[in-house]
Amino acid sequence: MEDNTVRFGLLGCIRFASKFVRTVTQSSNAVIIAISDPTLETANTFATANNLSPETVAVYGSYEELLNDPRVDAVYLTMPVTQRGKWAVTAAENKKHLLVEKPPAQNTAELEKIVEACESNGVQFMDGTIWLHHQRTVKIRESMFHSGLLGDVRHIYSTMTTPVPEQVLERLTKEAMGLAGAIGELGWYPIGAVLWAMSYQMPTSVRALPSSVTTNSVGTILSCSASLQFASTATAIVHCSFLSQLSTDLTITGSKGSIKMNDYVIPYKENTAWFEYTSGAKFVDMHIGWNMVPEKVTVDCSGTEESQEAMMLQEFVRLVQGINRGDSEVDRRWPKISRKIQLVVDAVKKSIDIGCEVVYL
Amino acid sequence: MEDNTVRFGLLGCIRFASKFVRTVTQSSNAVIIAISDPTLETANTFATANNLSPETVAVYGSYEELLNDPRVDAVYLTMPVTQRGKWAVTAAENKKHLLVEKPPAQNTAELEKIVEACESNGVQFMDGTIWLHHQRTVKIRESMFHSGLLGDVRHIYSTMTTPVPEQVLERLTKEAMGLAGAIGELGWYPIGAVLWAMSYQMPTSVRALPSSVTTNSVGTILSCSASLQFASTATAIVHCSFLSQLSTDLTITGSKGSIKMNDYVIPYKENTAWFEYTSGAKFVDMHIGWNMVPEKVTVDCSGTEESQEAMMLQEFVRLVQGINRGDSEVDRRWPKISRKIQLVVDAVKKSIDIGCEVVYL
Repeated sequence: MEDNTVRFGLLGCIRFASKFVRTVTQSSNAVIIAISDPTLETANTFATANNLSPETVAVYGSYEELLNDPRVDAVYLTMPVTQRGKWAVTAAENKKHLLVEKPPAQNTAELEKIVEACESNGVQFMDGTIWLHHQRTVKIRESMFHSGLLGDVRHIYSTMTTPVPEQVLERLTKEAMGLAGAIGELGWYPIGAVLWAMSYQMPTSVRALPSSVTTNSVGTILSCSASLQFASTATAIVHCSFLSQLSTDLTITGSKGSIKMNDYVIPYKENTAWFEYTSGAKFVDMHIGWNMVPEKVTVDCSGTEESQEAMMLQEFVRLVQGINRGDSEVDRRWPKISRKIQLVVDAVKKSIDIGCEVVYL
Repeated sequence: MEDNTVRFGLLGCIRFASKFVRTVTQSSNAVIIAISDPTLETANTFATANNLSPETVAVYGSYEELLNDPRVDAVYLTMPVTQRGKWAVTAAENKKHLLVEKPPAQNTAELEKIVEACESNGVQFMDGTIWLHHQRTVKIRESMFHSGLLGDVRHIYSTMTTPVPEQVLERLTKEAMGLAGAIGELGWYPIGAVLWAMSYQMPTSVRALPSSVTTNSVGTILSCSASLQFASTATAIVHCSFLSQLSTDLTITGSKGSIKMNDYVIPYKENTAWFEYTSGAKFVDMHIGWNMVPEKVTVDCSGTEESQEAMMLQEFVRLVQGINRGDSEVDRRWPKISRKIQLVVDAVKKSIDIGCEVVYL
């Protein structure tokens, strides 16, 4: 183990956290040294299921204990969104760098408290929007945006839908899901995708679409579509739902070209990913076909630490190491992106609250 | 030439009508026997460019002359949309069956006049929405909808965008484009696609999306997005624009599966077409990939008269022959579909007119 290895602790032992454990285990400069859950049994079961040996990994029955462990450099938060704000701030105050599952907070005010706590305590904040770190994402930016193949962005369509069994839908409480419901849990992705496609230009207004909004009997938002308007005459549609089959579409239509991915959140396969594009497409003479078929660009990620999780971990570790060495300040780019996404999530939620009227940003 | 061959005349000699000539020429039971244009020179040039011999094809310098030619069974109308209503009615009164380029009229009232004229004169009406006749379209209906692979339709996204050079945008007048502008000329397709995907259930309401609407200096609508709401909790987004690169996307997300085509209006290639679908898609354990990649279904249309144009022509010819033989009445299904699309086009236009407010249907 290198001296600058980042030592992680888990706040929350949900099943999904196994993915993070796997990524850290495969990395060369990070390690899990502690896990915690308010239910000790949950933590113990998680340790066994993930082959975390009691000799190297401390198992705590409370978040406090883990945060008081001075050996822990950084924490990965996966507890329900309604608790993230409180524990993220506490973690920052305990000088732990923060990697927080998305959505990192219930609203912008809460997120700002987290980010401020991180800044004043000199620890790094990053939310767990993994796909932003994928090599494909980087490749599209270079090969389509910077090259001019796309032209000006005119229209964006993005979704995140995943089906929840009918009997479970009613159990999605606001305590578990937060006030924004599906908009926070799922909509975070398409909203983030739109902002990414717009190079983080903010929309001028947002509107939830009438009748796209469904809730369960306790008022948790289960589905929602919204439109986002930009000063540059670009418009975007985001759609999130617990009522549809899995879909994670991102289509960007520009003045000169277009880009499509149908697996932008999590690629179909871990070791390879692709996107399709056209540029300068038109119908051929007599309109009996196109002058091209979409070009498929494949990105190889089969190397060690090339999965999007590994890329995210490496970016986080790099920032933490820089701060720990005293070489660099806390990076402000990632918290800024989180805040912009959260602002739009809040605006969509507000639009719903006021009867799907326009909300200006 | 068989006795029941349908003898076509063209009302309008725009360049695009060459496609129809080509399709008829390749067919075994239809023939072009006359063409007409208010400018005789245009008609003559068209005849030469399309190898239409003066020995077999009459060339008229007015629509009236063609409509007075008793040998003509059916006409194909391609003149500007603002003139279609008048000439379609006149053609019907002259007992000519009607194949009318889309949009067939400027609004529902005008379309109803055309359809009524056809009914009372015992001639067939069909608009030229070619893709509805493609074998792929039929295949999707059977293999995805009827089979249950898609489940209930939850969300639909459809576009038709095609770039018009900046200097030409200003020349798109309401006289040429009709009052609905891009909504009629382009939006006809995505609106029709949504209705098709909803098995022609009508939306309960429609709304143009604020700031998605752009116009040129003479007020012609150049781009527009709109949302359509259905009683069955399905929502749809349609987008049309003269400001973006060519895009013709149709994505249907259902409770169990999803379907995608990015070339639904005119397939990339004439002799083959495909769509992609998933059904029962989910993330694999630990969310490091999907349990499937989209399945690509290819439909071969390389045979004679298997292009979508040929399929449309054959359907029209079949109906006309049935009527001419006295075997069948005028078919009401196609005019009904046209009317439903036109009703939604009108509703989107109305929403724009009232400041992007909701229009109930």
